[in-house]
Amino acid sequence: MKISIGAKTIAHPHPAFIVGSYTKEGKANMMAAAWGGICCSRPPCIAISLRKATLTYHNIMHHKAFTINIPSSKFIKEVDYVGIYSGKNTDKFADTGLTPVKSDLVNAPMVEEFPYSLECKLIKTTDLGLHTQFIGEILDIKADKEILTGGEPDIEKVKPLIYASGTNRAYYTISAKLSDAFSAGKNLKKKTHHK
Amino acid sequence: MKISIGAKTIAHPHPAFIVGSYTKEGKANMMAAAWGGICCSRPPCIAISLRKATLTYHNIMHHKAFTINIPSSKFIKEVDYVGIYSGKNTDKFADTGLTPVKSDLVNAPMVEEFPYSLECKLIKTTDLGLHTQFIGEILDIKADKEILTGGEPDIEKVKPLIYASGTNRAYYTISAKLSDAFSAGKNLKKKTHHK
Repeated sequence: MKISIGAKTIAHPHPAFIVGSYTKEGKANMMAAAWGGICCSRPPCIAISLRKATLTYHNIMHHKAFTINIPSSKFIKEVDYVGIYSGKNTDKFADTGLTPVKSDLVNAPMVEEFPYSLECKLIKTTDLGLHTQFIGEILDIKADKEILTGGEPDIEKVKPLIYASGTNRAYYTISAKLSDAFSAGKNLKKKTHHK
Repeated sequence: MKISIGAKTIAHPHPAFIVGSYTKEGKANMMAAAWGGICCSRPPCIAISLRKATLTYHNIMHHKAFTINIPSSKFIKEVDYVGIYSGKNTDKFADTGLTPVKSDLVNAPMVEEFPYSLECKLIKTTDLGLHTQFIGEILDIKADKEILTGGEPDIEKVKPLIYASGTNRAYYTISAKLSDAFSAGKNLKKKTHHK
């Protein structure tokens, strides 16, 4: 028997995306975003939601471009720093020692030290209330060779950060692999019938 | 130095959401969705993207309602089963032995055995290409008492499934906690300056 706990924005797991953008003047900035995820396979698109109060909101509105940079868990301090402070008041690249590299496809900076980055062209904005959703078409991914398996980012090499909002307010990474997909449950029905 | 790997739909971590809906005739169905995430804090909203080919697409269009059910990792076989088969051909609740319970707020079923469920009223659909994005306002969360800490779902008690698409095609859960947020990186700048 479940109980009502109210309308909360909890749906585990939450990502720890680092969004790269340039100011109008061309200064590189990054922010942490936990509200987002892939939203279309063809064309490949990703959604992130930002408050109007953020510098990144205005940067993306101006340049119609952003990057999504996936941090490895070893960058936990840098990611947390990016989530705490605003680019309005400080240069977060200089502060963290991370390196902005301009995408060759969109007018937005990638985080050189992170294992891979999605280069996104803004195709849609939707004002939802406190947050505005930005949908970007993924034009390319730039990745470190060392984190690839069969040409794609391997989650076990990436060791991505996972953010838990709400009561935890903490960072995690992935466990060891539990099971292959399209495999673990294949014969479940048969087993159920044998009960 | 990074290399180009093409426009792929990879942005770790991906969720393993189980979407609950009713057919026009009122039969409970569930599907697995990895494309989605929270998209607004006020009003609280969540986005999921579905192909028109799915039964759930038409169910949500009809009832303007769905649930997002968060599975614990112990339900890995059930989740995988739900991801493999279509409700067009089989009754996935009967097959897996999971129990549909009608939400008292929206016309959609929750998965009784899962630790918590978001009850969502459809407020927006956007056709993006292969996928259509559904945005639901979260009207309430129904949760098992045992997975709460301070009234909110505790990720360490939920032990959510994490899906890795692409080269891994596998399930994971979270690691032990790495660090508190708004804490780990607080003094990073000072340290950087002391280098």
